[in-house]
Amino acid sequence: MKKPAETIPERVDLLVAGGVLLTMSDAMETFADAAIGISGGEILFAGSMRDYPELPEAAERIDASGKIILPGFINTHCHAAMTCFRGLADDLPLMEWLHNHIFPVEAKYVNRDMVYRGTLLAAAEMILSGTTTMADGYFHESSACRAAIEAGIRTVPAQGFIDFTPPGDEAVRNHIAVAEKFLGKWRDRSPLVTPALFPHTAYTCHKRTLKAVKAVARAEGALCFVHLAETAEENRVVRDATGLSPVRYAESLGILDPRTVAVHAVWLEPDEVRILADTGAAVSHSPESNMKLACGIAPIPELLAAGVRVGIGTDGAASNNDLDMVGEMNACAKIFKAARMDPTVMDAASVLRMATIGGARALGIGDRIGSIEPGKRADIVTIDCRKPKMTPLYNPYSQIVYSAGGADVSDSIIEGKVVMKNRRVLTLDLEKTMEDVEKIAAAVRKDLEERCVCRHG
Amino acid sequence: MKKPAETIPERVDLLVAGGVLLTMSDAMETFADAAIGISGGEILFAGSMRDYPELPEAAERIDASGKIILPGFINTHCHAAMTCFRGLADDLPLMEWLHNHIFPVEAKYVNRDMVYRGTLLAAAEMILSGTTTMADGYFHESSACRAAIEAGIRTVPAQGFIDFTPPGDEAVRNHIAVAEKFLGKWRDRSPLVTPALFPHTAYTCHKRTLKAVKAVARAEGALCFVHLAETAEENRVVRDATGLSPVRYAESLGILDPRTVAVHAVWLEPDEVRILADTGAAVSHSPESNMKLACGIAPIPELLAAGVRVGIGTDGAASNNDLDMVGEMNACAKIFKAARMDPTVMDAASVLRMATIGGARALGIGDRIGSIEPGKRADIVTIDCRKPKMTPLYNPYSQIVYSAGGADVSDSIIEGKVVMKNRRVLTLDLEKTMEDVEKIAAAVRKDLEERCVCRHG
Repeated sequence: MKKPAETIPERVDLLVAGGVLLTMSDAMETFADAAIGISGGEILFAGSMRDYPELPEAAERIDASGKIILPGFINTHCHAAMTCFRGLADDLPLMEWLHNHIFPVEAKYVNRDMVYRGTLLAAAEMILSGTTTMADGYFHESSACRAAIEAGIRTVPAQGFIDFTPPGDEAVRNHIAVAEKFLGKWRDRSPLVTPALFPHTAYTCHKRTLKAVKAVARAEGALCFVHLAETAEENRVVRDATGLSPVRYAESLGILDPRTVAVHAVWLEPDEVRILADTGAAVSHSPESNMKLACGIAPIPELLAAGVRVGIGTDGAASNNDLDMVGEMNACAKIFKAARMDPTVMDAASVLRMATIGGARALGIGDRIGSIEPGKRADIVTIDCRKPKMTPLYNPYSQIVYSAGGADVSDSIIEGKVVMKNRRVLTLDLEKTMEDVEKIAAAVRKDLEERCVCRHG
Repeated sequence: MKKPAETIPERVDLLVAGGVLLTMSDAMETFADAAIGISGGEILFAGSMRDYPELPEAAERIDASGKIILPGFINTHCHAAMTCFRGLADDLPLMEWLHNHIFPVEAKYVNRDMVYRGTLLAAAEMILSGTTTMADGYFHESSACRAAIEAGIRTVPAQGFIDFTPPGDEAVRNHIAVAEKFLGKWRDRSPLVTPALFPHTAYTCHKRTLKAVKAVARAEGALCFVHLAETAEENRVVRDATGLSPVRYAESLGILDPRTVAVHAVWLEPDEVRILADTGAAVSHSPESNMKLACGIAPIPELLAAGVRVGIGTDGAASNNDLDMVGEMNACAKIFKAARMDPTVMDAASVLRMATIGGARALGIGDRIGSIEPGKRADIVTIDCRKPKMTPLYNPYSQIVYSAGGADVSDSIIEGKVVMKNRRVLTLDLEKTMEDVEKIAAAVRKDLEERCVCRHG
């Protein structure tokens, strides 16, 4: 992987030096006393200082001594703006939670300003816990894009579509217009943004909407997300309405292909693992949300064995209740061991692959990000090991997945730019970001106290 | 709960003021704009500033504005010194992990100095994540006591007993002598220390040892811990050897009573839940260790429903791989929802009770600690909510269990003494504590590289 010494440039924009480098390349190369050179947002070289006779001059340096350096985490599924509703309602039956709590506050409070503020707060939280790319699915996604660009975080913003009533011709034409406009607006606008589309689910979108939105995505070469087979209840509802399981229904509509990400994919028959593999669809797995909402446990080992690209996502802060990919990895590594009574499944290195290069490939951008290799965009984080909880260090993969938390992430570089240094976020005013969401929360809280949202929602 | 205003003293040693107070009293009282007065290690008053006409002068103050104040966490089961082996071997079958990795390094490296250094590191990690009491079970527990007192953390140190061969009369007499000496040495020596005993398990201790150690504990009024029904394999081995399940075997030996803590209690028949309830034995539940080692999922909701006192423990850092009670609560709240497909089981407030007053009662010291009420010893922590991941705040119980991590704990008071202020540990030199364990780890690492420990262990 390391380029020959003679190709090391004389100057770089940014040099990360010291620490243990986990490249997450296919060969899973690791280097002690790391040196990584970055210019123009691109990784020029990555290896061990010992192998370079001389390091280049650098406009900026990150000292990674005592830290682990790895690719930033790729959150393949979240509803970023829902930070506004974090912890609003918990420990409730899923349908009560959704219909009596989440949908009513969303109906009242979701607007462009809320999406912008909520996404800024989400971006802050994600940067602070090592995420460098979020795949976001919500409404008013242009506002989410503005927030992500402002925070300096890479995003795959997916404009959401939902039908509260069966859509007529005009409604479908409107969906198509919104989809085309959104993709057109954000295509090639920022190196941080890869726009996508997100018809909500098979049971909240009419088949005309599912097909129409996917057709726009396909025409534009854009990614299409869809919540699929998240709960037993969803499977029952879709089967009652269509005669098919959600996966077979999606297949019948022709919306499964390598540019589709099936979000959750919990309730799959064995032959449906094969359908996802054969169509080339990717999967986003949210272990903490699935656990907390008691959705079930997705067949992730089988999906991986079948060759399906699987990434990890946090889901929204209303259901999880955080956006911390480190905690998500911890849960992912443990839930399958517990459920299958096999301590060898989902080992630490495999889980860390899912959270980095696996997620990048699921999003179709594995050629650009997800590992630390020359030629890739520089999305890099460090984790500080000079803490009691991270001492001693025998195995860096284990330490990250089983001992670390998001708060142990120390530095973050996205597209070659340092967005956090020694836990100081450089791109955002955190106080203001929090205050702005607190103002929304104050109104929601007042509603809750008056019980008007939840009772009559 | 609040004392009348006229009983508020003129001066206190320590005043905690501001923030949201979760008392964890039986009535689950909460107060905004909290004020807590502490003198001589005791809580004198606890309520809302609004209810006191005048606050006393204080020798020391903790400003808890923007924070949640709650009782410190009570870790009802750990092997503190095993921080030295954190992440040494993971993702392995349990018996391979134990016999080829853990037992060999323990045989070579466990000594008084290692226990002292490892426990100091554990105490640092626990203070940093909000634990104010640890129930520790290991060997050379007097060294562990010295470390805990130095760190200023409350401890229930349980001297370990194990038989590698069936013990003769002399070996049993030796166990008794060690047990009596340990309890005698630490009884009434420090307000932080409540000594106890820990025969390892039904399958690593002969029945003569189990009965003899419990008899010493009973005579001294001390607590007795025993790993019980942790794995299906344990149940099989015990049944093969004795004809009884571990719980029935322990009952038949007369070692279950209100001063016994059954650690793990995963593999219980329904009528064995009743046996634990009827004997009055308590249970320590370690969800993360049980998940990671694929032991199974303990019937905690049934134990609680039967009236069994249940606390939460982290288990050792070699199996978890941290000592973070906040992470443990998160796993505890989610694993039962996932396993039972019911999002309403193990709600956030119930889990927080288990980690505080529930743990105190399981350890038989619920009259002294576990809640913030006048007359109790002052073991108090704060959690900082002025962070993106903790914003907004709708429900403090949810926020702690589902959004916080150990690193969000800000201040810690134990026995009325401030041991951590704004995340600065005041009792320990963290750099030296980590260095001392790193020296042990360096030797272990060298062994691992030479493969002499793991291959021939």
